[in-house]
Amino acid sequence: MKLATFNYRGRRFLGRVSARAQTVTPLRMAADERGLTPLIEAMVEGKPGFPPEDAPLPLAEVCLEAPIPRPRRNVFCIGLNYRSHAAELAARGFNGAKTADDLIPAAPVVFSKVPESVIGPGMPIAIPAASSAIDYEAELAVVIGKGGRGIARARAMEHVFGYTIVNDVTARDMQKRHQQWLLGKSCDTFCPMGPWIVTAEEVKANDLALKLWVDGELRQDGRTTDLVFDIPAIIECLSAAMTLYPGDVIATGTPAGVGMATDPPRWLTRGATVKVEIEGIGTLENPVR
Amino acid sequence: MKLATFNYRGRRFLGRVSARAQTVTPLRMAADERGLTPLIEAMVEGKPGFPPEDAPLPLAEVCLEAPIPRPRRNVFCIGLNYRSHAAELAARGFNGAKTADDLIPAAPVVFSKVPESVIGPGMPIAIPAASSAIDYEAELAVVIGKGGRGIARARAMEHVFGYTIVNDVTARDMQKRHQQWLLGKSCDTFCPMGPWIVTAEEVKANDLALKLWVDGELRQDGRTTDLVFDIPAIIECLSAAMTLYPGDVIATGTPAGVGMATDPPRWLTRGATVKVEIEGIGTLENPVR
Repeated sequence: MKLATFNYRGRRFLGRVSARAQTVTPLRMAADERGLTPLIEAMVEGKPGFPPEDAPLPLAEVCLEAPIPRPRRNVFCIGLNYRSHAAELAARGFNGAKTADDLIPAAPVVFSKVPESVIGPGMPIAIPAASSAIDYEAELAVVIGKGGRGIARARAMEHVFGYTIVNDVTARDMQKRHQQWLLGKSCDTFCPMGPWIVTAEEVKANDLALKLWVDGELRQDGRTTDLVFDIPAIIECLSAAMTLYPGDVIATGTPAGVGMATDPPRWLTRGATVKVEIEGIGTLENPVR
Repeated sequence: MKLATFNYRGRRFLGRVSARAQTVTPLRMAADERGLTPLIEAMVEGKPGFPPEDAPLPLAEVCLEAPIPRPRRNVFCIGLNYRSHAAELAARGFNGAKTADDLIPAAPVVFSKVPESVIGPGMPIAIPAASSAIDYEAELAVVIGKGGRGIARARAMEHVFGYTIVNDVTARDMQKRHQQWLLGKSCDTFCPMGPWIVTAEEVKANDLALKLWVDGELRQDGRTTDLVFDIPAIIECLSAAMTLYPGDVIATGTPAGVGMATDPPRWLTRGATVKVEIEGIGTLENPVR
């Protein structure tokens, strides 16, 4: 099932998107900036059944928002989590590395993006005055269903509600200047998310193709088989430290092909369009202004 | 003015604490896990005047909570922001440093703690199974009043609503293992906050004494005059990247004396009590279990 948050004639709705993404059926449930989070909470608690539905609308007539426009807390992200990405950064001598093995982390590198950085499909990524090195990162994002603490690897997938796409937009100069990555990852508009959440049973998350294009040019082309830490390992790691909650979003890292990995680097510039596609999920496209 | 969130006979209230902290006067305003955030928003917008008050209660008869039990997003923190702290870490060869200058950052080091890590005065800090190196950090925390983006240094103090105390509890082994600091800083219970917010006009934030004791032994004894980046610089830096909002909490860093800086290090252990005192603010004490 595909679940979306959308705007129709100035009002926000939650909806179920048809299998072939032709229509969206509004749900009779109040929708606010939390988007699908209250529905996820209700479904996880097994109450009160799936909400009743209204008549379907053509998907082309609505404006999709991020499925969770304002997450309950910062979006979690995992850094250096594709072997191909570690290899391309090692080739550029990132952090003094000589080979990919120098960069592949022994434990997940966990950072975050503020909730207010989230924008929906089609919304513009804004280049801040404080940066002149804006990069993209195509990422598969896990949406947590049942929360918990101390979740063992073997049971971790029971806690996944579904998946969406995140473009982990990054100001590389700020990321480096401030040492810790929060600020360079959290500029307003730096977390495009969408186009919807596909529920877990429909997705084989451990073997998906991820692609990213800038103005139609293919820049990233990876598979989740290349993940250093897979989804169960990530959930085990996070929940060893802190309680996870329904609606938590975890962006799982990006494969090779980022703008900083070429010489010279290729940054996003005003007027460009970035498109991410993940197999079995959909497409997320945003202009840069 | 001192503003608090407290529990009295099983109900949550917002209140005004008397100048000498003998009584707390409940405000006629609904109180939820956001604590003082809605009041801060209302006061910043200049409406609807300060809420009416009920009869004062003896402070000793209420249970103080964190002034903002659940911040709207992660608590911002500034790392390596006291010269004395940089010096003590350099003396231990932290990150290969030889002198404090090797560690004093050229730009603020910004990281965060998840909102759900916040606990109130007296609530226990829980040592997670995943760590055996729990440290304390006494910090002056700024609470944002009027929000904004691109706030210039010269106008930054207009955006400060007030101040509180944060103990930036840290699992040093996790902080190191995961490279980025989020996880080692965000374990459940790792953000003691309180005892209240003192509004800005009553605090000379640029010259305050901070002290921290473990079981009565003085471990940290610094002054905010030792800050590398002062509060206007921090607000300018954060707001250059992202919009700040009323109720945002920014912990401004810790002076010398942390447990990791001695040889051997002195970690917090079960049964210990940590007390932080900041001049003009108050005292925040939490047991460790």
